[in-house]
Amino acid sequence: MLALTLVASAAALTATPALAAERPEDAAAVAAQETYPTLFAEEMARAETFVDAMMAEGITVPVPRDPGGGYTHEQHKRNYRAMLLAGQLYELTGEQRYFAFVRDMLLEYAELYPTLGDHPARANQNVGRLFWQVLNDAMWMVHAVQAYETIRDDLTAAERQRIDDDVFRRAADFLSVESEATFNRIHNHATWATAGVGMTGYLLGDEELVQKALYGTAGDGEAGFLRQTELLFSPDGYYTEGPYYQRFALLPFMVFAGAIDRNQPDLEIFEYRDGILEKALLTTIQLTYDGYFFPFNDAIRDKSLNTAELYEGVAIGYAVTENPALLDIARFQGRTVISQAGLEMTRALDAGRAEPFPFRSLLFTDGPEGDQGAVAVLRDGTGPEHLAVVIKNASQGMGHGHFDKLSWQLYNRGEEIVRDYGAARFLNIEAKEGGRYLPENETWAKQTVAHNALVVNERSHFYGDRDLADLSAPTQLAFEAGEAFQYSAASIDDAYPQDGVAMTRVLALVEVEGLSQPVTLDVLRAEGQRNATFDLPLHYSGHIMRLGFDPARNVAERPVLGSGHGYEHIWVDGRATPDAAGSFMTWILDGRFYTYRFVPTQGMEVILGESGANDPNFNLRREPLAIQRVDGVQAATFVSLLESHGLYDGAAEQTVESDSQIAALRHHRQGAYDLVTIETLAGEEVAVAISWDADPNATHSATFEGREITWQGYAARVVLTGGE
Amino acid sequence: MLALTLVASAAALTATPALAAERPEDAAAVAAQETYPTLFAEEMARAETFVDAMMAEGITVPVPRDPGGGYTHEQHKRNYRAMLLAGQLYELTGEQRYFAFVRDMLLEYAELYPTLGDHPARANQNVGRLFWQVLNDAMWMVHAVQAYETIRDDLTAAERQRIDDDVFRRAADFLSVESEATFNRIHNHATWATAGVGMTGYLLGDEELVQKALYGTAGDGEAGFLRQTELLFSPDGYYTEGPYYQRFALLPFMVFAGAIDRNQPDLEIFEYRDGILEKALLTTIQLTYDGYFFPFNDAIRDKSLNTAELYEGVAIGYAVTENPALLDIARFQGRTVISQAGLEMTRALDAGRAEPFPFRSLLFTDGPEGDQGAVAVLRDGTGPEHLAVVIKNASQGMGHGHFDKLSWQLYNRGEEIVRDYGAARFLNIEAKEGGRYLPENETWAKQTVAHNALVVNERSHFYGDRDLADLSAPTQLAFEAGEAFQYSAASIDDAYPQDGVAMTRVLALVEVEGLSQPVTLDVLRAEGQRNATFDLPLHYSGHIMRLGFDPARNVAERPVLGSGHGYEHIWVDGRATPDAAGSFMTWILDGRFYTYRFVPTQGMEVILGESGANDPNFNLRREPLAIQRVDGVQAATFVSLLESHGLYDGAAEQTVESDSQIAALRHHRQGAYDLVTIETLAGEEVAVAISWDADPNATHSATFEGREITWQGYAARVVLTGGE
Ligand SMILES: [Zn+2]
Ligand SMILES: [Zn+2]
Repeated sequence: MLALTLVASAAALTATPALAAERPEDAAAVAAQETYPTLFAEEMARAETFVDAMMAEGITVPVPRDPGGGYTHEQHKRNYRAMLLAGQLYELTGEQRYFAFVRDMLLEYAELYPTLGDHPARANQNVGRLFWQVLNDAMWMVHAVQAYETIRDDLTAAERQRIDDDVFRRAADFLSVESEATFNRIHNHATWATAGVGMTGYLLGDEELVQKALYGTAGDGEAGFLRQTELLFSPDGYYTEGPYYQRFALLPFMVFAGAIDRNQPDLEIFEYRDGILEKALLTTIQLTYDGYFFPFNDAIRDKSLNTAELYEGVAIGYAVTENPALLDIARFQGRTVISQAGLEMTRALDAGRAEPFPFRSLLFTDGPEGDQGAVAVLRDGTGPEHLAVVIKNASQGMGHGHFDKLSWQLYNRGEEIVRDYGAARFLNIEAKEGGRYLPENETWAKQTVAHNALVVNERSHFYGDRDLADLSAPTQLAFEAGEAFQYSAASIDDAYPQDGVAMTRVLALVEVEGLSQPVTLDVLRAEGQRNATFDLPLHYSGHIMRLGFDPARNVAERPVLGSGHGYEHIWVDGRATPDAAGSFMTWILDGRFYTYRFVPTQGMEVILGESGANDPNFNLRREPLAIQRVDGVQAATFVSLLESHGLYDGAAEQTVESDSQIAALRHHRQGAYDLVTIETLAGEEVAVAISWDADPNATHSATFEGREITWQGYAARVVLTGGE
Repeated sequence: MLALTLVASAAALTATPALAAERPEDAAAVAAQETYPTLFAEEMARAETFVDAMMAEGITVPVPRDPGGGYTHEQHKRNYRAMLLAGQLYELTGEQRYFAFVRDMLLEYAELYPTLGDHPARANQNVGRLFWQVLNDAMWMVHAVQAYETIRDDLTAAERQRIDDDVFRRAADFLSVESEATFNRIHNHATWATAGVGMTGYLLGDEELVQKALYGTAGDGEAGFLRQTELLFSPDGYYTEGPYYQRFALLPFMVFAGAIDRNQPDLEIFEYRDGILEKALLTTIQLTYDGYFFPFNDAIRDKSLNTAELYEGVAIGYAVTENPALLDIARFQGRTVISQAGLEMTRALDAGRAEPFPFRSLLFTDGPEGDQGAVAVLRDGTGPEHLAVVIKNASQGMGHGHFDKLSWQLYNRGEEIVRDYGAARFLNIEAKEGGRYLPENETWAKQTVAHNALVVNERSHFYGDRDLADLSAPTQLAFEAGEAFQYSAASIDDAYPQDGVAMTRVLALVEVEGLSQPVTLDVLRAEGQRNATFDLPLHYSGHIMRLGFDPARNVAERPVLGSGHGYEHIWVDGRATPDAAGSFMTWILDGRFYTYRFVPTQGMEVILGESGANDPNFNLRREPLAIQRVDGVQAATFVSLLESHGLYDGAAEQTVESDSQIAALRHHRQGAYDLVTIETLAGEEVAVAISWDADPNATHSATFEGREITWQGYAARVVLTGGE
């Protein structure tokens, strides 16, 4: 890491940024001739509409007063958006009114800024000046400095001096000196701060600011932007808070890296750490289904690739790497940014250089060294209808993390079939706690039982203690993405330190001859030291069509399942003790049938329920779940299968294969091995054999129902009958 | 009606149908040159795929055995579809294999048919031969005779004789003589039967069959196809069972009318009864939102204009009327039929003759004379995002009718906001009672409380007695579709004959200055003779954002609302007794907010609930509802308002107007008048004044909160403040 310090110090800094220097002398004349790519021209028109409306309102730079969501907060946010777009429009059109707008607004800020102390709505240590928290001040600066860059050369010397001194030097000082603790953190808030300060340093020709931004205020590289790129992403470019936050964190990384690349190309920032920034961008995109981010942790579920951060990220990413798959994403977004990078990217798009983005099965390790667990994605097929399994074997992911170790989700035909609740929050909706996280985010959304994860004794992983959770992470044991068999295996042995329960889970996509899609096989082993209750919930989407078992139903009064750790939020619809033949349930979603089938161990109970109990303010969505419960045992193995089948076409009044095509699911334990067989109604039979042996070359064999099965490595699919 | 009989008898019948006569001698040569419109060519390709697959399977004409959904049932259905398409492909391509397929299959049927007696799976009086019920035999015949028409001329005389005698004459005899009771009904089953028999008459040159089909077996016109066109549709072309069944009934009407038009053009069948068949087609289309039929009565909700009946109907309708709006519907469908009519229609489409289908506010009277109530549709705007209110003031609509007098629904932005449950049925899904109507169709879906309709003493309209319901219908009192004010008024005074409760309801779309969409105003007056409980449910779609009242919630155990008449299916989430300021609730659906606001009369209780109680087999959807309840009074007036407002954009993290923009809703009774005022937060105020006086020229005035209001006619909107 320190190797770069020398290079950086040696790089020449100029007071004129590279981009501004490229602006033509007679910009208006050029603009008249210029024909922009359609996407770019549309984005310009959108920016013009917004900026013109802001101009029509007149420049308004209010004295800071309100917390997040309040008037002054929103006005300063609109101001920085408007300044950046106006500056970019000035670059593109040379129109004086844009120049004047940015100049006049920055002069207003020069009037205001020196008068400010701590924001009156401060809520914690990280108080801002313009905003209630320093993060927003940093975001303001990242935008404002880019706007300033577009007009600075054309100002009078007096104006330039005024804005340099009374806005940017003061703001940079505030962020880097007065807010030093935030600035030197290894955290995305610090990324915004270092980006704002560093870009100011480039623009003002202030090498000291640049050095602070890159290497921390101590200059030793233990903090600062470069250290952040090392510690905030795993070697695979995974950000530990999960994709929803990764999207947000990505913007300052990409924007500042773009500025570094222009001003200090010798730093080769985009090659740094084996191209970690491009990896972070591509990983962000890989962690989506039909454009929507996998809703891990405190994620807002409507967040998709269609977000400002990703417009910027894709444009800068393409400008630097010319990765043609990014053009495919831009095409999906139908939006861009009106920077030089956006122009380059949309020109390439118009030139037909796009290639399909290679969504595929991948493992993303977590942690700076890649040893804090992982997120595994298994995909079958391509396009909006493809099937994807997401497995969260990652670390807790800080304060927004959920207690969801070894949990999983399933997507198919554009729908989430096996769900993750995401965050319990209605963003910006005043009536819902002012748009903040709801109480049910703590009591339900974060709890283990709200996930497709194993719960011991009705308590969440780490007993819901985040500090405890931060101490450990799952171990990714194996991952393979073969043609007819893909799987992930992971374990964690300290999610229940008081109970001493170790969990190991294999999730696999298994092709079975004669079935239209691979089935998802789930083998979960839990081993403890004393008798316990093991609950394995499945949060599914759809309407029940058939139950293999006959539950005792609560049809006239609906009780609650338990108390605490999310159990108080579960209505109980019914309970059953199914036998092997009847251990399945079928539901329908969007014209496709899904059957969840499992191997009932002795005395296993199935609980059918729904979220939404003890929810006085109607904050929760009401969604169904099924729990496999094994009680009073020291260890349990859960073997479950999710099969998609058939079609229901209401318009054509046609229904096919509304019932499961599987005849049996069997599980045998042989020594250290777990053997599962899947038999179809048509007589095909496939085994999945798990050796739990990390040696990929070791050969294993076992006898199963009189048949010898031989396989190699951690886990394998073995065809028992039929031919392929 | 009888006037036509003479014309019909005088018309010359030919054994060669008009369409077949047009087939070119050297069809293959023509086919090679022919370029078909894209839509038509796609449909041909689809037909070829299906027919080729059927040919590859080999001709299979099984001995009838199974009931609906079973193997022999489905096979005979596939056979008639395949014969028709093969015949049409033969017409288009001249390819011998298609000719041979239809011929060979009909010869198989000639083998089978004479051996048949009553179908072994008979379930009622209306037993068929090939199928368990005669309706399916008639459907078989309507398809088969069209197929036969395409090949008959090219058969050997012996083959022709064989098929004429052993298939079609026998089948026609079965339908018209042996099944005379069905044949002579005024019912859509009889429409299929008369269509099949009549078309056979044309093809075989058998005038007697044609006469029976047109005028009934007695020949007096009291039954038969022509009488059906008079009695099954209202003068506005509304079919009393509702749009879902109207779609189904339409096919035999259109197909047989097309045949009549070709064979007996002098009958001017499409001009008959002021063009009733075109009206029926256009009304079927008007009774949709975003292509989906309003789910009145026992409707399957996924039924849209994309259905075989409407492909056929649109093609024939266009070929006859050349109504350019039908081309718009064909474009929406993206499908057609490969008949001569389909070819004409798609050519016109390719020639750019389509004009937008004029979806608009309309009243559709019910009953042969138009005096059995009506369905009113109020629309605001156009396109997939437009707002529509549907009001069901129609008659019971026979056995599939629901007890939903004066009920309503609201659609907006492509979503159903105020819902109708439709049928409780999973069509063709074996696990759900074999795909038949579920028990909950009777106990919930048909009941009044499952609708947005007034319930008296927790019992359904007509006490759930269909025979009683058939005796009366609502009266449509008024309907107007003005620029800023559209409304429907209707009453029914014998929905509760034992209780003697009369109900009158005005539903209106009212523009209010400053609001983004008109609000829906609902004024419902119920008057009885003794104290009663009046419940007005609202079945809404969305997630509660804000309640103006503070309900006592059942958060830890959820009880059931009542017993019988659907009340046993309602879970109670909470109860409240709101004051005037707090009588509202806001929910969100698909990024738009909706506020339901009402005027609480003394002691009014609000019950928040959800469907799904006492549903042992998970047959019901779980959907929220709110009930305004007034207890122990002889009369009640319910004044309610539904307002759509604001936007939530999760991707952009922007929310506007998440709270209602209305400050107050007030209601005053003055003599016979009802006056309602709507006041916005911005200070605009609009009154809706109802005189309940049918004279459109009468002028009314009233003093309201010190202000004089003057209006003309039944109901009017009066702006009190602000200017428009
Ligand atoms: Zn979660
Ligand atoms: Zn209904």
